[in-house]
Amino acid sequence: MKPFGNTEVNKRYTVVIGCGRLGANLANALSDEDGNVLIIDKNKDAFRKLSPSYGGLTVVGDATDLGVLQEAQINKADVVVAVTNNDNANIMVAQIARELFQIDRVIARLYDPERECVYREFEIDTICPAILSAKEIDKILAKTDLSTANSQEGEA
Amino acid sequence: MKPFGNTEVNKRYTVVIGCGRLGANLANALSDEDGNVLIIDKNKDAFRKLSPSYGGLTVVGDATDLGVLQEAQINKADVVVAVTNNDNANIMVAQIARELFQIDRVIARLYDPERECVYREFEIDTICPAILSAKEIDKILAKTDLSTANSQEGEA
Repeated sequence: MKPFGNTEVNKRYTVVIGCGRLGANLANALSDEDGNVLIIDKNKDAFRKLSPSYGGLTVVGDATDLGVLQEAQINKADVVVAVTNNDNANIMVAQIARELFQIDRVIARLYDPERECVYREFEIDTICPAILSAKEIDKILAKTDLSTANSQEGEA
Repeated sequence: MKPFGNTEVNKRYTVVIGCGRLGANLANALSDEDGNVLIIDKNKDAFRKLSPSYGGLTVVGDATDLGVLQEAQINKADVVVAVTNNDNANIMVAQIARELFQIDRVIARLYDPERECVYREFEIDTICPAILSAKEIDKILAKTDLSTANSQEGEA
């Protein structure tokens, strides 16, 4: 398989691992932005989450298997995003992409925020939904504090 | 049970539903900030995630049960945050808090972003980890674009 050939050499090539809610949305968005994108999932049925207009490629297989990554021509990727539902799988694929295939930009989702420190060593960007959610809740609570303060001022 | 009595009447009282990673972190943080906080979970063991310094209250029970919410004196809450791992439970508790107990600020986590529209009607704030994660990945990819553009400028 030869993803996207040489004619689209200037476009960014993104490999997404895991076709869950986040992976599928990301692949759809990148495909809509006219980028080259390939998505890998162990389960063929997961690709149903992709939109009918999805213009990228799909590969069925376990991305912790080097053969599957080679089939996806991961060595040509500008960006690799590991967003399976399994932290260990994301860690493993991200490290393979970074260390073995020297991909510049590797992003991994980690449910467990305590593992994040491992990644800094490897120069891997991490996304932790619990931390992002906590920050968002803080923002909303800060707005609550402000509106309470304002209404108290109004009463004074 | 009388949470926090009248002596701390000026402090914000927050009820957190669900002592998972996000709920426990949030309860710990609010307790550290010297706020009044009570956390509810069906499973007593979940409270092990709370830090030893947690200064709030805990209630074991199903928060979709009105009796449990009354035990938690939810009517006195300034903020209710529903972050169980079950979207349906979060939806139900958030609506009870908003409609039945007229809590001003209700926040719910929703794994399924398509349910978000339901909430606007009820003036409930929603946190969707998949959307937050997608936004964060966009930010990282935008940085990649910028650094690529910069290096190309450098080469020119």
